[in-house]
Amino acid sequence: MNRIINDPDRVVEDAIQGYLQAHANYFSATDNARVLKYPAAPIKGKVGIVTGGGSGHEPAFLGYIGKNMLDAVAIGEIFSSPTAGAFLDAFKAADSGAGVACLYGNYAGDNMNVKMAIKKATAAGMAVKTVVANDDVASAPASEIEKRRGVAGEILMWKVGAAAAAQGYDLDGVIGAAQKAIDNCRSIGVGLSSCTIPAVGKPNFHIEDGKMEIGIGHHGEPGIEVSPIQSASAMAGTMLDFVLNDMPLAKGQEVVALVSGLGATPVMELYIYYAEIEKRLAAQGVKVHRCYVGNYFTSLEMMGVTLTLMKLDDELKTLVDMPAHSLGLTQVE
Amino acid sequence: MNRIINDPDRVVEDAIQGYLQAHANYFSATDNARVLKYPAAPIKGKVGIVTGGGSGHEPAFLGYIGKNMLDAVAIGEIFSSPTAGAFLDAFKAADSGAGVACLYGNYAGDNMNVKMAIKKATAAGMAVKTVVANDDVASAPASEIEKRRGVAGEILMWKVGAAAAAQGYDLDGVIGAAQKAIDNCRSIGVGLSSCTIPAVGKPNFHIEDGKMEIGIGHHGEPGIEVSPIQSASAMAGTMLDFVLNDMPLAKGQEVVALVSGLGATPVMELYIYYAEIEKRLAAQGVKVHRCYVGNYFTSLEMMGVTLTLMKLDDELKTLVDMPAHSLGLTQVE
Repeated sequence: MNRIINDPDRVVEDAIQGYLQAHANYFSATDNARVLKYPAAPIKGKVGIVTGGGSGHEPAFLGYIGKNMLDAVAIGEIFSSPTAGAFLDAFKAADSGAGVACLYGNYAGDNMNVKMAIKKATAAGMAVKTVVANDDVASAPASEIEKRRGVAGEILMWKVGAAAAAQGYDLDGVIGAAQKAIDNCRSIGVGLSSCTIPAVGKPNFHIEDGKMEIGIGHHGEPGIEVSPIQSASAMAGTMLDFVLNDMPLAKGQEVVALVSGLGATPVMELYIYYAEIEKRLAAQGVKVHRCYVGNYFTSLEMMGVTLTLMKLDDELKTLVDMPAHSLGLTQVE
Repeated sequence: MNRIINDPDRVVEDAIQGYLQAHANYFSATDNARVLKYPAAPIKGKVGIVTGGGSGHEPAFLGYIGKNMLDAVAIGEIFSSPTAGAFLDAFKAADSGAGVACLYGNYAGDNMNVKMAIKKATAAGMAVKTVVANDDVASAPASEIEKRRGVAGEILMWKVGAAAAAQGYDLDGVIGAAQKAIDNCRSIGVGLSSCTIPAVGKPNFHIEDGKMEIGIGHHGEPGIEVSPIQSASAMAGTMLDFVLNDMPLAKGQEVVALVSGLGATPVMELYIYYAEIEKRLAAQGVKVHRCYVGNYFTSLEMMGVTLTLMKLDDELKTLVDMPAHSLGLTQVE
């Protein structure tokens, strides 16, 4: 394991320290060492936008703190949920009195800890509501959508929810917009290699040379199928089929396409892949209104790619188009 | 080799296609399939800023096309120089009549091809001047600085040169500013793993588990020393010593620090490393005026990190602080 770390048990603390030193414009420390907030937060009159999740997915989650983006983030160990206390302190850091929208992913630990944090927040007089992302079509059939994991679609949920808050939506309005965003997102991932958590010191799982795992999760959760590796073109077709079978798109429909590397895949390959996705969508009369291609939601040094499509209506389009800036996503036009 | 490609001999073409489809706001095609330009280029009255280099370093080089950034880029095969014809066509795409600054890295192929391109450009009546980046302290001793390679310091040279052009400097002024930028940059890299060029199909070189190569080049050029892997803290100390021995910094000096991953190193580790760099500089009374931490100049899926410091004066500070946006570097404040 050739890595750039000090103590394998302190990689999260050490990385947070680096983020704070590097980007005072994006990050302020709070009394909780596992909570970072946007320096201007809480922003008077604005609904606070909070998320949280395990580390190792950078720039997710903390890299989406920013202007017209997240106000505060609860930070967990690598691939582990933040504590209930961290979620609670993130709510406090984000709440200006207008309430907090906690927009997070559907994992057992996060569900439990968010629930506990909300209980305490409510007792303290705060209004906190949630949207739980479940965009990964590979993680459960459509009939059990409540079991699906949240993956890169979370970024679009944050973008839309945060834009709604910045535009002055109230808490119910923000929750409605973020829920609509994730309800219109579908994602799927393909893994090409494993990753090593520093404190573990050996790969989490194994993908053979010449194979790919379709539907793999962000923590190496088993996918649907291990197949011989496909060309970028065939891989795009396979992944798009999963998404479109779950969320058919009519001719003329506009979408956001988000193609994220899992960490170690060269960026040029993400663009080779994206070209194939856009070509296939165009052939069906579906237009990519906006795309994001890059390492937006990673899994340490895994190789692989995730595809997320968000079906747009006028409201989602306006919100997704709103300028924003953060480490992970900046949009100036 | 588990990769997301179609034809291994066409990865550059296929990736360019993806870039064009994904980002019409940043990229326009030209008559030369290996030259991309900023849609607004050539910008009337402004000195054109051009670079070029091999592929596989994304977001370098093409990802730095943008507003107040590069106007046109010549694109080579993976780890190979663009052709003289591509450089010439990039000059044409960038020249509004105010001349072109070609700011590129010191490699034999690039030197030869830029020289040939300039000969033809001059014959056609264009004014093209160059700055050749040589910021890699590991690639030759200070007494043979003209042999040193250009590495991630090129990004700061482009940022400064492009800002000067955007502020209305004439060609000699732009060249002077870019030359000053690179003269005040020093870089060094450490490699932790190799990379595989798709058309080759096996790793370029080998780094043993538990070892690191100090001074490695962006194409796997041998470094100064292979040592047992060090902690992030010790690695930062080792690398900083090389830089500061070559470019001593007085107490009170302000710098830009650029920490770039080589591709596969998890971003959180780049921040662990950055914290160590900043701490050491602070102990010497050196202030980081601005930092960039991320995958700015990569080598496919190599693991490792590069450190670049740029010593600032008032002019460089103003130019580096100018807002800009591009795929690889966006600065809104």
